[in-house]
Order: sequence, then structure tokens, then C-alpha cells
Amino acid sequence: MFQRHSMGCSAHTTNSPASVPSFIREQVEVGRKDGYWIEAFPFRTSDKTGQNLIGYGLGSYGSPSNIEMFINPRNPKNKTPTWNRRPLASLEFPVAMAYADITGNGFNDVIITDRYGSSMNDIWPDGGRVSWLENTGDINASNWKRHTIGSSPGMHRIGVGHFTRKDRIQICAVPIVVKSSDFTTPAPVIIYTQPDHPKNSFDLWPAECVMTRTLVHELVVIPDPQGGLDRVLLAGRDGVDLIWFERGNWEVFNVGRGLPKDALPKSPYWGAGSAAVGRVDDDYAGYIGSSEGLHGNTVSVYTKSRKSKHGIIDLEWKRHVLHDFGPLNDSFTGSIHQVVCADIDGDGTDELLVAMMGSEPPSFDKTGVWCFKPIDLEKGKFSMIKLSNESAGRIAVADYSSNGHLDFSTISYSVPGYFESPNCAINGYSAVGITAEKLQNEVCFRVPRPATTRFVSEVEFLDVAARKLTLVVLPPNITYKVPTGSGVKVMFGIVSWDDNTTGRNEKRVLATKPFSRVEMTVHNDHVQSEDEGAIFVLFKKSPNAIQPPYENMKQVVARNIIPEPYPVEVRAMSFPWVKVEDAPWANGRFKDLEFYNLVGFHVRYADDSDDVITHIQLWTAGVGVSAGFHNHVEKSFCEIHACIVNGTGHGGMRWAKVADDKFNPDKPNLDDTGLVVVPALHEHGPLWHTGLDGLPLLRKNDTVDYPWHAWLAGDKSPNGMQSYDVWVAFEFPSFDTFGDHPTGLLSGSFSIKSNAAGFIGLKDESATDGTPVLAGLAPQEWKIIRVDGTNLYQIKHVKTGSLLASRWPPVEGESLMGTHSPANMSLTSSWSIDKHPSGEISLRLVATKGLTLSYKKYGHPAITPVILENHIGTVETPKWQLVPVYD
Amino acid sequence: MFQRHSMGCSAHTTNSPASVPSFIREQVEVGRKDGYWIEAFPFRTSDKTGQNLIGYGLGSYGSPSNIEMFINPRNPKNKTPTWNRRPLASLEFPVAMAYADITGNGFNDVIITDRYGSSMNDIWPDGGRVSWLENTGDINASNWKRHTIGSSPGMHRIGVGHFTRKDRIQICAVPIVVKSSDFTTPAPVIIYTQPDHPKNSFDLWPAECVMTRTLVHELVVIPDPQGGLDRVLLAGRDGVDLIWFERGNWEVFNVGRGLPKDALPKSPYWGAGSAAVGRVDDDYAGYIGSSEGLHGNTVSVYTKSRKSKHGIIDLEWKRHVLHDFGPLNDSFTGSIHQVVCADIDGDGTDELLVAMMGSEPPSFDKTGVWCFKPIDLEKGKFSMIKLSNESAGRIAVADYSSNGHLDFSTISYSVPGYFESPNCAINGYSAVGITAEKLQNEVCFRVPRPATTRFVSEVEFLDVAARKLTLVVLPPNITYKVPTGSGVKVMFGIVSWDDNTTGRNEKRVLATKPFSRVEMTVHNDHVQSEDEGAIFVLFKKSPNAIQPPYENMKQVVARNIIPEPYPVEVRAMSFPWVKVEDAPWANGRFKDLEFYNLVGFHVRYADDSDDVITHIQLWTAGVGVSAGFHNHVEKSFCEIHACIVNGTGHGGMRWAKVADDKFNPDKPNLDDTGLVVVPALHEHGPLWHTGLDGLPLLRKNDTVDYPWHAWLAGDKSPNGMQSYDVWVAFEFPSFDTFGDHPTGLLSGSFSIKSNAAGFIGLKDESATDGTPVLAGLAPQEWKIIRVDGTNLYQIKHVKTGSLLASRWPPVEGESLMGTHSPANMSLTSSWSIDKHPSGEISLRLVATKGLTLSYKKYGHPAITPVILENHIGTVETPKWQLVPVYD
Repeated sequence: MFQRHSMGCSAHTTNSPASVPSFIREQVEVGRKDGYWIEAFPFRTSDKTGQNLIGYGLGSYGSPSNIEMFINPRNPKNKTPTWNRRPLASLEFPVAMAYADITGNGFNDVIITDRYGSSMNDIWPDGGRVSWLENTGDINASNWKRHTIGSSPGMHRIGVGHFTRKDRIQICAVPIVVKSSDFTTPAPVIIYTQPDHPKNSFDLWPAECVMTRTLVHELVVIPDPQGGLDRVLLAGRDGVDLIWFERGNWEVFNVGRGLPKDALPKSPYWGAGSAAVGRVDDDYAGYIGSSEGLHGNTVSVYTKSRKSKHGIIDLEWKRHVLHDFGPLNDSFTGSIHQVVCADIDGDGTDELLVAMMGSEPPSFDKTGVWCFKPIDLEKGKFSMIKLSNESAGRIAVADYSSNGHLDFSTISYSVPGYFESPNCAINGYSAVGITAEKLQNEVCFRVPRPATTRFVSEVEFLDVAARKLTLVVLPPNITYKVPTGSGVKVMFGIVSWDDNTTGRNEKRVLATKPFSRVEMTVHNDHVQSEDEGAIFVLFKKSPNAIQPPYENMKQVVARNIIPEPYPVEVRAMSFPWVKVEDAPWANGRFKDLEFYNLVGFHVRYADDSDDVITHIQLWTAGVGVSAGFHNHVEKSFCEIHACIVNGTGHGGMRWAKVADDKFNPDKPNLDDTGLVVVPALHEHGPLWHTGLDGLPLLRKNDTVDYPWHAWLAGDKSPNGMQSYDVWVAFEFPSFDTFGDHPTGLLSGSFSIKSNAAGFIGLKDESATDGTPVLAGLAPQEWKIIRVDGTNLYQIKHVKTGSLLASRWPPVEGESLMGTHSPANMSLTSSWSIDKHPSGEISLRLVATKGLTLSYKKYGHPAITPVILENHIGTVETPKWQLVPVYD
Repeated sequence: MFQRHSMGCSAHTTNSPASVPSFIREQVEVGRKDGYWIEAFPFRTSDKTGQNLIGYGLGSYGSPSNIEMFINPRNPKNKTPTWNRRPLASLEFPVAMAYADITGNGFNDVIITDRYGSSMNDIWPDGGRVSWLENTGDINASNWKRHTIGSSPGMHRIGVGHFTRKDRIQICAVPIVVKSSDFTTPAPVIIYTQPDHPKNSFDLWPAECVMTRTLVHELVVIPDPQGGLDRVLLAGRDGVDLIWFERGNWEVFNVGRGLPKDALPKSPYWGAGSAAVGRVDDDYAGYIGSSEGLHGNTVSVYTKSRKSKHGIIDLEWKRHVLHDFGPLNDSFTGSIHQVVCADIDGDGTDELLVAMMGSEPPSFDKTGVWCFKPIDLEKGKFSMIKLSNESAGRIAVADYSSNGHLDFSTISYSVPGYFESPNCAINGYSAVGITAEKLQNEVCFRVPRPATTRFVSEVEFLDVAARKLTLVVLPPNITYKVPTGSGVKVMFGIVSWDDNTTGRNEKRVLATKPFSRVEMTVHNDHVQSEDEGAIFVLFKKSPNAIQPPYENMKQVVARNIIPEPYPVEVRAMSFPWVKVEDAPWANGRFKDLEFYNLVGFHVRYADDSDDVITHIQLWTAGVGVSAGFHNHVEKSFCEIHACIVNGTGHGGMRWAKVADDKFNPDKPNLDDTGLVVVPALHEHGPLWHTGLDGLPLLRKNDTVDYPWHAWLAGDKSPNGMQSYDVWVAFEFPSFDTFGDHPTGLLSGSFSIKSNAAGFIGLKDESATDGTPVLAGLAPQEWKIIRVDGTNLYQIKHVKTGSLLASRWPPVEGESLMGTHSPANMSLTSSWSIDKHPSGEISLRLVATKGLTLSYKKYGHPAITPVILENHIGTVETPKWQLVPVYD
């Protein structure tokens, strides 16, 4: 559906840390008796997304455990929108599982251990069986045929791979203990190798004990990135070990010892309890995460020097304790059961997810999944984000919803006699960029900031007037496929495409030029975002819908198309057209007018700012209808209309060209109005009053100052029948638009100097807000960036990300600084740039008549950049040279 | 906890329709095999709130139904926060239940029918048993002792009451049919009467068949409001009947016939399927709701003339079909299983709730609970609101959470062989006024508009610095108990109290006078709201917390105290103090300062406007720390600080008294600043620049114009130790505050006239927005209302609710109109009122120097009110007389 440009990443992409997606919880199975293991299970070996789940508990004496497969609701063979179950086997005290296609039929078979016993103090001497369950390819099959592989008492973790040979499936299997209550005797590390005819053979698989380890509680298969033999990461009393077969021998590399033995002298559980390897870009082992000790409360990571080579072996790893969730209980155990690594934010660096079973007494902190996100790996600095609050024995990460985001599922840890979670369940957590919430009759969408997300996020929400409206968020510099002929209404950033019909490159921003219009249609099959990313509504064709023109409102009926996994409250909403005279706010107006309204969709940022992006509502008007001249004195916003259907071809926006008090909105004199016809799939530009450089003018009551204006439908339709206009109103917070001083400068990176003052730069190149801008320095790099939808530029210090800004207030002689906290609408950091015939430029500060970037002689430093009043045309403008920067 | 004033309701209360609360879903039991009946069960007869639940399905052959009681998690005998179950009985095909204290031990016994059969086509000839299950008072008891009352095949609905005598418990019991597949033969209406010794007797209860009815699917006991004998409402093939015993005879009154027999000629299910009586203020039978036919798809109400007497009998009832959920299936049934009436919005008029089981194919519209809210009863006009989206066989309304709001619970309809809900469950829906949602590290609260809610809503959210912060919403004119010594910070409306120490009446609004301060402490045990209601944060003492002063930040640790039933995501949040130098927005500033921030709480309205009320965050600063001079040029809001702890007693707000460019925020000259010390439990007034009449001044970039300002902690603490200030910032959207022209007028209702122009009023007394205001009319009543927190007044036309407003724009000669859609900050509808020695007044329009309410001579009408420029002191002000209005 989308691809990142091959031509490198933008400054935005690399500067803004990736945001973690939102997760929508979905109950896979509730009211379980117990819970222990969960696994994402690709039913076919080719299933890279949309996996099924396999989950189970240990069972208890007299009540064997049911090993169940839960079929992904997105699987077309699943007839209901729930995770329907298939019983695969009934086993006594099963513990670990893995999967592989043992029969070679293209379907994964399940490999599972059972007959463990009820606890480490009740290990079945003849147990620890390893079996495989045969997947015939029938997704409806129950009770898969079981084949025994082998057994070893206390069998507790297994992994599938090629450990000593590539031609056969092998299983690495490690008991946690060898007999009841013996926490000392090392247990064998066993390699089982697939026999010639596994399906037909009743023989056990050839087994080899390759070494022994003590109290191993986790086993992770680590594929060799060079395609060699797989390796195995073990977490146990020895801490974190990597073991592998090389030149005829089994080798061990100890990454770290974990919790020291003397940390709790009476505890048998030193070392580590779980471990996982974290990818960092192209290094599959950028760090190693671990929990300590066995069922402990400590999360640690091992990091290596930034200069280290890739991989694990023979490198120096430094242990950092990231967090201690508090004291252990009297049995020396805590709440962590597993750690896994996964790149849930899509930035190329894995996060460390920690599964916490819960505690007695209950504690939210110790229940659910924590995400530790790397901030500064070498310093062992991570941030902590809680992803879920339901007991998690283990975590199964996969893209279950096939939307390009990694989702995860958990099963509650609930083992009778040890720890029982009060609401034992299997929960799915679907990662979405965009969330949706029901208000009363309207929806509130929350979207990620494009600069911080690494995913394309999209949600179809309304099928109306033969268009499917889809909310889309693009990260920076992304190519995104769209059906040719779709419309695009931008709400943030820039969306661009090459028009196939004209050959021109088209760019769309928040608003086109004031009192003008622009076409929204994309004559191409893809669009692109630029450095800041983009948020927009895509108007896709809805081919099965009734096509315009519309003679009656029943033909325009709108359908809610918000999909799973959005909450049922949102999916169950309907969006009726309400005749405006019946709207609660009509207060007696609009009587008998064919004028309808459909509410509505709030769009906000999905972060703590809760900042508003826009409010969207829809309108229709019959032939000859005026939507009523108004001026938005009640509420402050900047409104742009995007037309879906223009019933007569003549409908559009009119505005009073005379002063407010010279216009009677109840009896409008259309001779006093301007008109922009807004054809289907067109939008108009700002119709409010703007001041210098396109800043909105404001009334005393903090509303944006509008002339009287209205949508007027055309007077008659071509065939004389009723014919409705359908349009979408986008209500934005006040913003800056195009002013009347366009410049033709291209963006780029430069050093900035003048002959008299020399190069300007940030003092000490400090990223601190408020750092003075000085002159006469060594060259520093500044990036000149067009401010979307204006004729202005921002000037960004490349090394620090600071903006070149006037100190407040912008007055004659005010000095300059770098800031990451620009004033609203960039009031102190936007510049109008004039290019002179010499190639030099002058920079005037936004919304000032002539405050230009200049310099003043002081004592020391001799010359300081300031802004000085410089009426263009009357005084010579200070000129600056842009010196291109090359790496 | 609160009481409405006895002194009548305000205009706000009666004018604004009540809003329906928000409902938070809670899963009582999921993964059920089947579902049919649910009942709110008061375990003790004295339990008026906090009821338990009893729920069950019909069971199936070989799998009897478990009758289970679910213990309310708020019950102190329930040890876990879940609805723990107790099995009361295992019965074959149970159908209906009721309860009464048959043994007289103060605990309700369960009355239940069973042995119905699997469907109307499989009625057990020897079944239809009625039993009671004995409640010994032990909430942990299982398998309650069963006593048989009697039996009649096809037994389907029962009710408990006193139908023919008051001294004995009686049961009215009605089979739906008398034998399998016989939809024609009428069934008996049986009255069972409690014997002398029901507990010890093995005899059946004396039974009497008092009449027969056909296909009765609902039975509701209607108590007599005069305390006489109970009556019974039946819904069946005859439609809706009321039956009762009077003077030795059983009487029948048919309210209506329901669905006509010929509506679907082949259907056996004409008439009604369920019915309920809706209270309207003091009339227990203001309307009667019904679903039609049996398991039908139509919702109807019967209404009577507004002039009718109370009650049901012998009145003329008019049937209105409110909604048809669509065609029936081939068996002539649809999705509605029950209707109930309940006053969920607290306005004195019951809503009609409709339980919908679901449909095949699935449809959101036909699944869950719809609320039909009366708008105009006589016209049969109701609005429809969806309350839940999970299959509902029946609805059990009660105040389970004991918060004064009615909650409800539903059980999915799932009967094998008829209709099986895919996710069979018992769900609870807790009514709350305030909702809470997790953003990232902040919470978004949504609150009802005080004028529309009939409930006090409150949520404790943060325990910090020995204060428990509670968000409170008060309806108009409510007395609300508070612990004496609490603090109040108003966010909307007025909160007032009489100060016990001074005897003065204290009023608090959004902000006190600019550059001043006011105490927040309530020296009384209650506060009151006024006509507009109020929203505020209450700062209650937290006696068990560490009390100030605070020498280190660990003592100030904040605890999340958001309770059930708020979502676990919100309750699991922590609110750490973040050192400001580490905040992402510090960008290198605030190095090494003892300056901490705690985020944060957004407060918005819980409606489609999604309007912002405030954003709340907390700060601390150590001795000598400056929070940094700043001016909010980045973001627009009006900020007020409320102090919890003043570490030195000298901390407070400073602001630059010189022009922005004469002040260096990095090296502030404190001689150029003003100071308001803000002691503990005090708040300061506006510190931004205001213009005429207190309107905020705005910068070009749509931010509120502030002087440089900062919180500065005191220089030293009394004991020389560290001592932190703790304060709360309230960031409001821009608002109007007190101007410099205070007036002493009291609010009240008047006619307004001048000698020359006569009385002014709305043309035709029309409520339409934009209706002209004319002079020389008969007296009309206007209410003069102080605009909270300003020196201004709004003038409201009492009959229509319209405000006296200038047309836009307010210029010399502009005419006046009535409007319900005032400009933002009431820019065209706020008036500064001067009272003259004569007692007459003059009215100047807000934010104008001298545009005053005046009049002009026109052709016709001869005199029209307008605003005219009238510089006070230079031209005589037009004077108006306020003529008091008496009923």
C-alpha cells in the first residue's frame, strides 16, 4: 500500500522520535480457568500476517489442559467476527510450544511439551514429553494427530531451528529442573533431529544432550543473519547465555550474569528469567533485554559500545538495570514472566516488551505489558510506556490485523497453586495509528503527528454521495497509492502528485490562495508526502453507490464504514442527514429550506496536547437554496469547503465585498458579493479577512474576522429537476495563509552571511531554547523551509534543530535567538524572503512592515544580528548571501 | 450528598432539556452458553441501591439452567472487585422470576418459574411450575432451598404484590400458552396467595384463576399510588391491558390494541409483546410504552391529553408508533424482547428503554438498548439514543453503583433453536456524569453541561500535597456538602457559600479581579450553585497524607485515586513529578532548578461540541526558584493558578509592569514587576492584558496578550530548610473578566421601557433567532442576568429564552434582535448597566465606548430600538425604566 522513498530520509524523519501506536483491546477469550502460554500461529507457512493464536493453561490434576487454536477473525474461513476456537489436543500439564512444517505440506505443525507436573516441586519423573501435532491443512479439524518426539523430566522450553545441520528440522529442548525441588542439578540441553519419515514413524526422534544448564526459564532461537546455523539464547541461573554449534563443537558465550547470586542470599533464583534480542537498524543484536531472576521484578538490558560490530559473540556487554518493580515475595518471586523485543513503533529499533502476571496484593504496575523504548542505548536510557493492564503470562507479537503495524496478544498468567489472575483471559491489542471515539452523534478521531509516526494510518469512515471518505496520515516522504480520480483535502502538511493529464506537479496544502479555488482530483495512482508528512481526507470513488446527480435526499444516504477493530460504539453509529430547520441550533431559522446537515467528525492529535486539527461536517442544499449569510462571530475557526457534488454546476461560496454594516445578510444584495463556484472535487481558499503575510484578522471576542458569506446553490439544474449540492466543511483552528508577497526562493541548506557581518550562527551551537544568534562565526548550516500554505519561510539550524527567531516582542533592534518552541503561527520565526538580482536575499519578519534581519555594532561581540526597521523601497535592504553547504 | 433547593427551579433548569448520562460498560459475566432473564436483586429488603443481579438462560435438554446470583462488587462482603457468583438453583427451562421477603427475615426470597419446555411448540404438559427459593441471609450460601407454590403449563410471567388483599404476599402468574403450538386458547391469569406458614408448609399456595388472556408476553405490577391494591399491566394478543381487583370483581381496562390483527394477515402475533408505564413528574402513568407484536420490531407509546387526570383507567390513550426497526422474519418475529421505563436522566419524566436481542443477519440497530426520550409527549415525539450495543434479552434498571444515577444491566438473548447471540454475556452499564479517558500521560475528563444535567457528578482524581482533588459538576441551584476547610476552584458558573468565620456570603467564579487574589477555602460544610450550575475542582483535606511543609519531593508524591467504574487504563495511570529540566519541552532550559511539573487533566464538555473547559496541570518549586518569566506567545489560553502549598509563605506571581521590550525575562528587574503573593488555598486573578469591559487583548497570532510573568517561590523558608510551593495551573480558553466599570445592579425580571419609546419586546414574541426587537409594545418580561465573572449583564427574554443582542456589527444605528446563538464572549449581547439616581438605567454594549441602547424614529414602526453612540458624560444617556414583573 505504501513505500518509503528510496532517496533518503528527511530531517523530520530522523529528528522526531517515533511515537508508539495506540492499541485497541479485543477480547479473544474471557472467563478462562487458567492461562500460561500464547503463540502467534501462522496456519500456513506462508502466513506472514493475519496469524491465528494458540493458547492454553497448564491444567490441573483431573482437568487436563485444552490446547486451542483461535482462528483470526480476518481469516476468510472464519465465518463470524470472533476468534473461533478449534481444540487441537487435551494434554496434562503442557508447558512450552513452537511450530514448524514437519510434514512439508505447507502448513505449520505444532510442537508441544506436556506431562511436566503441577510445579517445580512436583515434576513427573516419567514426564516432560515432547510431541508434535499434525496440521493436515483443514482449519476446521479438531484433535490433531499427536506424534511423540521424546521426553525428559521437567521439560520447560523448546525452540525450532537448524542447530547442527540445515537439512533437517531440529528442536532444542531444555528442562528447567531434572527432578522435583532440585534447583541445583543442571538439566540437559537436548537437540532432537527430525527423522526420515516423521509422519509415518512411531519411533522417537534422535536426541542428543549437547550441554547442561541450570534453571533455564527462557529459550529463544536466534537465526544467523548470514544464513548459517541458528543459535539459542538461554536465560537461567547462569544469566544470559548464547549457545551455538561451530566446527563440531557446542560453544557458549555468556552475555551477562544477571542478578548477582548475593543480591538475595537466601533466594535460589539468581541470574535471569527471560531474555530477548533487540534489533537496532541492521544490527540484529543492538541490545539484549532480560528480566531477573526467575519470575523476578527487575528489568535489565545489556548494551554494547556504539562502535561495536554487529551480533552478540565476543563483544563487551554492559548491564543496565532499567527498572525494579519492587520487592519479591517470601518465595523470592515477583511478577515478570517474559520479555520480548519487537519494533512496535516501526523506527527500526526494537522496543523491549515486558509481560507482567500481576501480584498479590494487586498492583496496576505489576499487571500487563510495559514497553521499554530505547532513548539512548549506550547510556542504557529507555522510556517506559504501559501498553496493557491485563495480566500477561506471555506476549505474542504479530501483525494479526495485516495493517502493517505490529499487534500483540497476551494470555493471563493463572496457574492454580502459584498465582491466579482474577480475570483470566486471552486479549488481543491491535495497533492503530488512528483511534475513534463516540461522542454523542459525532466521532472524535485522534491521529499521530506525521513527523513522529513511521506508519501510514488510514481509516475509511463514511460512504456518502458516491465517495468513500478516508482519513489518512502519512509519515514524511512517503509514496501512497490512491485510486486514480480520488480527491484529496489536506488537513496538515503537503500532498503532491504529478498530474497525468497536464504533466504538472500538483501540491495541496491546508488552503489554496484566498478567494480562489483549486481542484482536489488526483489524476494519478499515487500521491506523496514531503518533509513534514501529511494528514488528509481521501475521497475515493464508491462504485456501487448511487451516482450523482441526486434528485432526492434518500439517494444521498450516508453509511458508516468504520471497520474493526474500532469499538462497537463507534461502528454502531449512524450519520443521518438532519434537515437544518430541525437542528437544535436553527432556533426557528431555515424554515422549509432543502438544506441538510450531517455531523460530524472531530480530528485531534493522539497525544497529551489533545490539539485540534479540524472538525468535519457535511451539508447538502437543493436548487436555489442559500445556506444563509453568516460570519462565524459565535465561534472561532478557519473554514474551507470541499465540494463532492455540485448539483447545478453553479453552486459555490459568495462573500460580501462591502463592509459588514453595509450588507444585510437577511436580504443580501448579490451585487455586493464575490463568488467562487466550487465544482465537484474542488475546494475554495480562505474567505476570512487576513492581514500582512496572511495572518487572520481577529475580532475583539477572539473569533476570526469574516465578511458575511454563504454557500449558494445554483438557481436551476440542467434538467429542471431537484439536484442537490453536497459539500464537506473543514473547520480549522486559526492559521496563517498566503499573503500578497510571494517569493520564488527554493528551499535548501545554506550558511548565511553578509559581507559586513560574516556568518551567523548559534552561540556554541547550543540547542538550548533562547541561545543567542551571533555574527562573525565559522559557517553553520541552516535549512530554509517553506512554511506550508504561506509565502513565508522558516530557517532551521540543522545541527540543533533550532529555528532562527526574533526575541519577543519583535521591535526595532530586537536580537535573535534559536528556539524549538516557536510562537503560535510562527509569529517570531517566519520570514518573508526577497531575492535580489545579485542573488543575495533579504529577510523580513512575518507580520511586520519592514523589520528585517540586520546587524548592529556593539561592544563585544562586535557585530550582533538584530531586526531593524527597513521600509522596503525607501531604505536599502540589508542583504545576505546563501552559501550552499556540501558534505 | 446533595439536595435541590426547596425554593423552586431556575429558568435554566426548566429550559434546558436534561442530558442523558454517559454509561461505562462493565462485564458482569462473559462467555455464557445462553441467556434470557436478568433481575436487579436487593439481597436485603432494605437495599435501595447497590443491588445484586440474578441472571440465567433457559438451559436445554440435558443441560439444566444454573440460576446464579452475582454479588455487587460494591458490596462490602464481596472480597474482589468482580461480580462473584453464587449458584442458587439448577432448574429445567426456567423462565420468569420475581422476589419478595416471604419468610419475613428481612431478606428477599426468589420466586421463579421452571419446567416450561424448550419453546412454545414444546410446552411440558406437567410443567409451568412456580417455586420460591429461600434466602437465609447468608450471602455465601449456595443452592437455596426450593419450595413449590403451584404450577400451570406454559407459565411465562409472574409478578409479586397485593392484588386482592394487603395482608398476604400474592403472585400474579400468567402462562403464555396452555399447550404446545396452541396460540388460540386463552391462558389463565392465576393469583397465588401466601399460606400461613410458607416456610414450613409442603402444601401448594392457594390459587385462583381470575380471568383468561391470550399470548401474554409481559406482566408488570403497577402499585397504586394511593396505597391501595396493586394492579397488573399485561401485554399480549389483546394489546395492552390493565387488570385489577375492585369491589369483589376483577376489572380490565384496555389501553390499546397494539399492532392490528390485519397488519400481517398470516402472523399469529398481533397485539403487544411488552409494555411499561412511564412516570411524568407526579403522574405515575404519564405515558405507556409498548413493543409490538410478540418479539416484534415496532415501538409504540400511548399518550393522553395534557389535561387528563393522573393514572391509566378510563382515560383516552392515543397510540403513536415511534419506530419500526424493519420487517419481521419468516416466523413473524423481530428483535425487541422487552420495554421498561426509567428516569435515567433524572428530569422527572421516564425514558422508554427497549431491549433488542439482535438479528440474523446481524444489525447494530437491532442489538442492544435504545432509549426513547420524550420530547413532546402529547404529539408522541421522542428522540432516540443508543445506550448499548450488546444483545439485550431484558434490562434490569437500578442504582447498582449507589451514586444517585440509575444504571442498567442486560443479559444477551440466547435461546438455542430460536436466536443465539454470538457473544452471550451479562453486561452492566454504570451511569456517570463525568467520563475519563487516557491520552498518553494525561487524562481527558468529559463533563455534562451543568444546565442540562439533573445529577451532581463528581470524581476524585488526585491525592497530592495532602489534598484530594475532586472534579465536581453541579446542576443549577443545588446545595452540595463539602468538608469544612476544603478549597474550591471554579471552572464554570458560580459557587457560593456563607463564610462561618466572617458571616459574609462568598461567591467564586472563573477568575477574581485582575492582578488580585482571593481565598479558595470554604469555611462552611456546604456550597451552592446558582442558575447556571457550576463546574469546579474541590480540594478536600487528605488527612492520612504527609502534611506540608515539604522538604523533599518524595513527600509530595501524587496518587491516582480515580475509582471504579472508570476504565482500567485510566485507573492504572501514574502521575509522576517530572523535573522541568527533563521535560521534552524544556529544550535545555531550567537546568538544576528545583522545579517540577505533573501533567495533566483536560476537561471538556461531554457532548458533540467537544468544547474545552480547561487544562489542569500541577507545579512545584523549591525555595528561591523562579518558574521563568514567560508570556504564552506559543499557545493561547487564560491561566489562573491555585496554590495548595506556599512553602515560604512568600511565593506568588510576578508580572512586568513595563512594556514587553523594556523587560528582560532572562535577567528580570524585579523593580519593574508587580507581585501578588498567592498563599495556600488562594487563587490569583487574570494577569493578561484586557481591554474595555475585561475582554482579553489578542496578539496577531491569535494568542492572549500577556505581560512577562512568572511564579517566583519565596527567597527563604521560616526554618531555613527546603520548602516546596505546590500549585495548580488552570488553563482556560480566552474569556471575558471584570472590567473597570462595576455596577451595583441586582438581577431580576422586568419589563423595559422608556418614556418616549414605551416598552421594548420581541416582534410577535417569536423565539426565532434574529427576530427584531421593537419598541412601543405591550410589556414583555426580560430577565437581567449578571454574566459570571464580569461587570456585565445579559438580558434574556423570559418567554422565548432569546437574548437582547445587537445585530452584527455593533455600529452606530445598528438595530437589535433576539438570539439564542450569542456571539463568542457575548460580544453582541452583554451590556454594561449604569443606574442613575432616578432609578432609571442606561445600557452600553460590551466593548464599545458608548454604543448604548437607544431608539430611532423610523417610518413604521415609528420607533425602533437601536444602539447609538453616546459618549458617557458628554451626551445625555438614554434612560430606561425597569418595571418589575409580578405573576
